[in-house]
Amino acid sequence: MSPFTGSAARTSDWHHLRVTRTDGIATVTLARPEKLNALTFGAYADLRDLLAELSRERSVRALVLAGEGRGFCSGGDVEEIIGATLALDTAQLLDFNRMTGQVVRAVRECPFPVIAAVHGVAAGAGAVLALAADFRVADPTARFAFLFTRVGLSGGDMGAAYLLPRVVGLGHATRLLMLGEPVRAPEAERIGLISELAEDGGADEAAHRLARRLADGPALAYAQTKALLTAELDMPLAAAVELDAATQALLMNGEDYAEFHAAFTEKRPPKWRGR
Amino acid sequence: MSPFTGSAARTSDWHHLRVTRTDGIATVTLARPEKLNALTFGAYADLRDLLAELSRERSVRALVLAGEGRGFCSGGDVEEIIGATLALDTAQLLDFNRMTGQVVRAVRECPFPVIAAVHGVAAGAGAVLALAADFRVADPTARFAFLFTRVGLSGGDMGAAYLLPRVVGLGHATRLLMLGEPVRAPEAERIGLISELAEDGGADEAAHRLARRLADGPALAYAQTKALLTAELDMPLAAAVELDAATQALLMNGEDYAEFHAAFTEKRPPKWRGR
Amino acid sequence: MSPFTGSAARTSDWHHLRVTRTDGIATVTLARPEKLNALTFGAYADLRDLLAELSRERSVRALVLAGEGRGFCSGGDVEEIIGATLALDTAQLLDFNRMTGQVVRAVRECPFPVIAAVHGVAAGAGAVLALAADFRVADPTARFAFLFTRVGLSGGDMGAAYLLPRVVGLGHATRLLMLGEPVRAPEAERIGLISELAEDGGADEAAHRLARRLADGPALAYAQTKALLTAELDMPLAAAVELDAATQALLMNGEDYAEFHAAFTEKRPPKWRGR
Repeated sequence: MSPFTGSAARTSDWHHLRVTRTDGIATVTLARPEKLNALTFGAYADLRDLLAELSRERSVRALVLAGEGRGFCSGGDVEEIIGATLALDTAQLLDFNRMTGQVVRAVRECPFPVIAAVHGVAAGAGAVLALAADFRVADPTARFAFLFTRVGLSGGDMGAAYLLPRVVGLGHATRLLMLGEPVRAPEAERIGLISELAEDGGADEAAHRLARRLADGPALAYAQTKALLTAELDMPLAAAVELDAATQALLMNGEDYAEFHAAFTEKRPPKWRGR
Repeated sequence: MSPFTGSAARTSDWHHLRVTRTDGIATVTLARPEKLNALTFGAYADLRDLLAELSRERSVRALVLAGEGRGFCSGGDVEEIIGATLALDTAQLLDFNRMTGQVVRAVRECPFPVIAAVHGVAAGAGAVLALAADFRVADPTARFAFLFTRVGLSGGDMGAAYLLPRVVGLGHATRLLMLGEPVRAPEAERIGLISELAEDGGADEAAHRLARRLADGPALAYAQTKALLTAELDMPLAAAVELDAATQALLMNGEDYAEFHAAFTEKRPPKWRGR
Repeated sequence: MSPFTGSAARTSDWHHLRVTRTDGIATVTLARPEKLNALTFGAYADLRDLLAELSRERSVRALVLAGEGRGFCSGGDVEEIIGATLALDTAQLLDFNRMTGQVVRAVRECPFPVIAAVHGVAAGAGAVLALAADFRVADPTARFAFLFTRVGLSGGDMGAAYLLPRVVGLGHATRLLMLGEPVRAPEAERIGLISELAEDGGADEAAHRLARRLADGPALAYAQTKALLTAELDMPLAAAVELDAATQALLMNGEDYAEFHAAFTEKRPPKWRGR
C-alpha cells in the first residue's frame, strides 16, 4: 500500500467489471459478453473509480484490460447509453461526457502501464480505451473502429482527437475519426496502432506475458517512463529535457539503479525491487 | 445560409479559380493548366477570400480542391511570384507570406472537410495546400515535393514545418522539407501522406465520391470532428478531454443523434440532416 | 566567422572526441572503439562545449556525428558513468543529467543540420544522440536500443520521451522506451526512425555525401528550415504560420533567393552562397 492512503475504503466488489489481482498484475475484464461488452453508465463509473483506487495501491505494477467473449468492447450500449442520453438534460450530458473523458485521463495518468488485450471488435469508446492504453496487444481478429460520426457525434470523443494523431499521425487520424471505418489488424500494425501482434486467440495470454515482465521489472522506472511520455506530449523541448534530468537524478538515488550496477559487476541478473 | 451573414456580398465571379457548387459540395479547381496551375498573387488572394465566403455559407458541407490538366499544382509561379517578390519591399514581402499562410489556416479552420484531389505534381505551395487538406485522395501519378529550399527559401512555408511532422513524423518531415525531394505515391502512402489511393486518372472522381458521402452524412458531426482535430494538436490532454465532453454534450442535443437512435430502433438507415 | 564572436577562445584540441573540419563540414567522431564508444563525463562535456563553439562559427554548414570501430555508440559507460554516479550527491546527479540534456538541446538548436552516421549499436545515450540529429543515415547493421529501463532508469532520458513520439508516434515510442528492446534497421526504416538506408559499411560515406550536398547548398535556408522544425513542434498553428511568414520575408531579401531566380532565367544551375 502507498503510505498516502486516506480514509476511503477499498471497494471489494465491482458490479460492472470483473477485477482480479495476481502478484502485481491487476486484470480488468469487461464481462458482458452477450452484448459484446457494450459499456453502460455503471461500467464507465466503475472504470473511473477503479482506476482511482488502483492508483493509490503501491502493489499494482501493471494492468491488463481485456474483454470477455467474442470481442474486446463494442463501445457505448445503443439502448443504455444512446437511448438514455436522449432523455438527459444539458448538465447531465456534460456530466456523462466528462466521466468518459475521466476514464481516458485515468488510463493515461495511472502510475503503472496499461495493456489492452484486443481480440475482435474494439469500437467507439472501446477503441478509445484501447488507444489510451500504453500497449495494444492484439490478435489477427482485432478490428478498431472509431464509430462516433456513425451515430451523429464528433469523432473527438474521450480525447480521441488528441490521442490518435499522436499515435498514427494526423492524416490517418482524420480518416479514421471522420469516417469511422474499421481498421483491421494488418493496417493497425502498419500505421502503428498495435504494439504487439499476438497469434490468433492469444491476445490475453500475450498481454499477461508482457504484464508479468513489467510487474517483475524495475516498476518505478516503468511508471516514470509512462508519466514522462504522457506529460511531454504537452511540453516544449526545453522543459521536457529539464523534467528528464530531475527524474533521472531521482531514480539514480533509487534501489534498482544501484542493483543494476551490483548485478552487472557480479555478472548476475538484477533482482528488481521496483523502487 | 448561416443566420450570421453580414453585409458582405457573395462574389459571383472568381477570376483566378474555377468554383462550382453542387448539392452541398463546393469544387475549387486550379485552372491554369498551361502553367501546371502555378499560383499567382491573385490565385492566393482568391483562395483566401473564397474560403472566407464559403465558411459563412451553411450550405457547403464538403470542398474538393483539384487541379486541371497534367497536375495538381506546381506551386508559386517562377515569374509572377518569385520574380515579382524580388521587387517588393520588406512590408510587402511580409504581406505576401502572411497571405499564403492565411490560405493554409483557412483550409484547416473552415467548417467543412477539405479533400485535395491530387494527380501529377503537387509542388511547393501546391504540396502545402494538399497537406493542409483533411484528406489527400491521390492517384498513382501523384508526386509531392516541398521545393522551398530549392529556391533558397525555408522549408517551413505556409505552416509546412508545423503540419508535416504531425502528419508523417519529424524524421520524414525533416528529410522532405530540408531536401525538397519528390515523394511519389507509394512512399506517400507508406508514410501516411495519402488518405486514399485512387486508380490512375481517378483522383477527382474518388475525391467527389468521398465529398458526396461527407455532404450526405452528419455534416455537423464531421465539422466538429475537423475542428477538434485542428484545435487539439495545440492543446494539452486535460483540455482536449474537456473540449470533447462539451462538444459531445452539444451534439447529443442535436437532430442527427436522435435520428440515429430512431433509425436504429426502426431498423432503417438514418436520414442525416447535418445538424 | 560570425561577427558576433566574443572573447572565448576556440578550443584547438578536444580530448574526448575527434573533430575535423573540411570545407564547411564538421565531423565529430566518437573514438573510443575498444569500449564501443561508450560515453564518459568528459565526452558529454566535450559534446556540449564543442556544439556551442561550432554554433558560433559561420563556416560550419553541416555536421556529421559518427562512431569509430564496430558501432556508433553504446551509451553511458557502465563503470565511468553508472558506477561513478552512484557516488554523486543529488545536486551532482542533477548537474550530470542536465548536461546530457544540454547536448540534446544543442543538437536540436545548432544552426546547421546534424547527420548521425549509424552502423552497429546505437544504445542508450547513443540512441538519443542519433534521435536528436536531423538525419539518421544508417547501414543494415544499425541497431537502436533505448536501454534506460534496463538499468533501472526512466526511458525519458535526454529528451527521448519528447522526441521519440514525435518521430515514430506514441505507440512505437512507448514500446521502445518502456521495454528497451533493439530496433534493427528494417523496423527502424518502417517506423520512420531512419532517414536514409545506406549500403553495408556505407553509413559514414553516405552521411558525408549528404553533408556535402547540404554544405554546398543554400545553407541559410537549411538552417532556418531546421530552426522552424524544432520551434514549431512547440507552437500552435497560428503562431507557426506567422513565424514562417517572417522567415520567408527575411530569406526573400537574401542572396540565394535572387540567385535562384537569376540562374533559372539564365538556364544555369544556381551558385549558392548560403546567405
